[in-house]
Amino acid sequence: MAARYKPPFQTIVWHETSAGDGLRLLDQTKLPTEETFLDCATVDEAVDAIKRLVVRGAPAIGVAAAYGVVLAIPPGSASRVLAVFDDKDPNWENLDWLKDQARAAADKLAQARPTAVNLMWATARMKRAVDAYDGAAFDFRPHLVEAAQKIHAEDAQLCEAMGEHVAALIEDGTRVLTICNTGALATAGIGTAASGFYVAKQGGREFKVYALETRPLLQGARLTTWELMKGGIDVTLATDGMAGMMMQRGMVDLVITGADRIAANGDAANKIGTYGLSVLARAHKVPFVVVAPTTTFDSETPTGADIPIEERDPAEVTNFRGTQTAPDGCKAYTPAFDVTPAANIAAIISEKGPIELPTAEKLKAHLG
Amino acid sequence: MAARYKPPFQTIVWHETSAGDGLRLLDQTKLPTEETFLDCATVDEAVDAIKRLVVRGAPAIGVAAAYGVVLAIPPGSASRVLAVFDDKDPNWENLDWLKDQARAAADKLAQARPTAVNLMWATARMKRAVDAYDGAAFDFRPHLVEAAQKIHAEDAQLCEAMGEHVAALIEDGTRVLTICNTGALATAGIGTAASGFYVAKQGGREFKVYALETRPLLQGARLTTWELMKGGIDVTLATDGMAGMMMQRGMVDLVITGADRIAANGDAANKIGTYGLSVLARAHKVPFVVVAPTTTFDSETPTGADIPIEERDPAEVTNFRGTQTAPDGCKAYTPAFDVTPAANIAAIISEKGPIELPTAEKLKAHLG
Repeated sequence: MAARYKPPFQTIVWHETSAGDGLRLLDQTKLPTEETFLDCATVDEAVDAIKRLVVRGAPAIGVAAAYGVVLAIPPGSASRVLAVFDDKDPNWENLDWLKDQARAAADKLAQARPTAVNLMWATARMKRAVDAYDGAAFDFRPHLVEAAQKIHAEDAQLCEAMGEHVAALIEDGTRVLTICNTGALATAGIGTAASGFYVAKQGGREFKVYALETRPLLQGARLTTWELMKGGIDVTLATDGMAGMMMQRGMVDLVITGADRIAANGDAANKIGTYGLSVLARAHKVPFVVVAPTTTFDSETPTGADIPIEERDPAEVTNFRGTQTAPDGCKAYTPAFDVTPAANIAAIISEKGPIELPTAEKLKAHLG
Repeated sequence: MAARYKPPFQTIVWHETSAGDGLRLLDQTKLPTEETFLDCATVDEAVDAIKRLVVRGAPAIGVAAAYGVVLAIPPGSASRVLAVFDDKDPNWENLDWLKDQARAAADKLAQARPTAVNLMWATARMKRAVDAYDGAAFDFRPHLVEAAQKIHAEDAQLCEAMGEHVAALIEDGTRVLTICNTGALATAGIGTAASGFYVAKQGGREFKVYALETRPLLQGARLTTWELMKGGIDVTLATDGMAGMMMQRGMVDLVITGADRIAANGDAANKIGTYGLSVLARAHKVPFVVVAPTTTFDSETPTGADIPIEERDPAEVTNFRGTQTAPDGCKAYTPAFDVTPAANIAAIISEKGPIELPTAEKLKAHLG
């Protein structure tokens, strides 16, 4: 299916070269001041790219990890396999050994970051593709490439479907507040929460987006403004602490965020600061909407309290893009995510549509 | 009266040198990585230092502005006046002309920043000292120095009194969340909100302070951690967006903030982000306490809606210390303050003690 809504750039590319194919990522740590790409040729390079947030956003890291599994297998044709393995090495034509390599890669990639469930979902699906394969050893890698490309293409389609549901909430004049980056940089398509901005824009609607900068890593300031400006969308940057005043002054009609994992009861983990936003939205009677594909829903996790929350390097809090902000030796608190209870959420929107005032029962029906 | 609680450093010094006396400020724009001082020899230099936040914090800018008025008058003795003025210039011994210079300086300094009422209060008091003077022209400057030093010393005493009232809320094990800088860097003494930390520490209590970094200018990260670490107080840095999660997790017993202006009805303007904190505190039943000397109370301003809110350069939001965070041309929202309604405030503490659940009537009685 051809994409109806094209993102203004590609975040993740499965890259064919004369030296073999590989994973090419738009290096998000360098944005907005440098637009460069990072090539990953090995599983470890893919794990490192995910850990360092070269690629980030729950759906995008799922897609990147799927391609990462492919990197466990030497590239291309049988002749290339021969070139990589010593021809005395019995493994190059040992499918079981290759499958073990791929499974080990999937496990390693699944553990690169703990909170986003898409990473577990995508690597588990790649493991099923590994298990299901019974062809020739030299065709194993193309089989995995195809499986990863399917996840990639599906994610782009999920984004389009979400985009149409979200855009239904955006009218001429609507002022939307969002946090972190949930657009084309966070997915393989036009985004989760931000997908609606692209669809509404393509539909000719005039609206305003306030992007919170999203400390500590400034995904809002660095990434969301960058991609929305590229997409011609009216975006204004604000610091995270300004959200309360903006709602108090009646400047916000709608808060839309993404999610990294949605528990069975509708509690949603997302970027640190999201929970506070949900409390502010509730206090000011502003609808608070969470947008995520069903690949982000985790029916194995009963409630938000069961979602593991990643703690990151204190240096991310005591520095600002390499500029020191706090004294040497300063202690810092460093959770990367927080959990918004279902009770604070007006609706969760997936590719299947909205779940209003989410409950465990409604989520089960939606997924089932 | 000798200070019972000494701040670990001096923020504002009236500095005597062989070349004449002048205003010396700890340059807060350079902290925490450089500890340097800036000397102001002219009114314009003092205005610039206040605008650039070399000195900041409502009480501290009041004291700095008081000394700034002195800088309108040539330094020291009659002989120095002669050295500065052309001896054919009739003005050096024209007291009326000197008084006009001082009044014009006071007006200029009063307009350096719009939100903190201490600036208006201190410059108005200096103008009364100008009006009251009827001595010799060459003694006018020492008279103004004395008036500014009185404001300076009084502010230090107000801090001590606030400190004892605030410390009464801090027990062994209390976990306090605060925003911006309200300590020795923000006043001429041990602080407003943070004064209680120094008094409680000196009283041997063990407690924990969470300092929010306070974007855009990071006064929490740069200044509060710096001064509390200097004072041996257990401080942990967090980003502004973490406050909600910390309250959700039961990590915060008390929120204490300063104020830049308190309206007649108890609404309090303070650093951007404070209002959102007050909503979060209310939702989590955490007491929200505002600490400010009565010099920050403005009975001429009926409600928070009447307090002018400074908007600053968008570059403060799109950059940090010269490091760009947002794309070129990105729009930004830039209020420096927000207003917390009295309804969200458990108590306002001044040097006179607490006003619980503040109302216009209680404030009037407290001040009267």
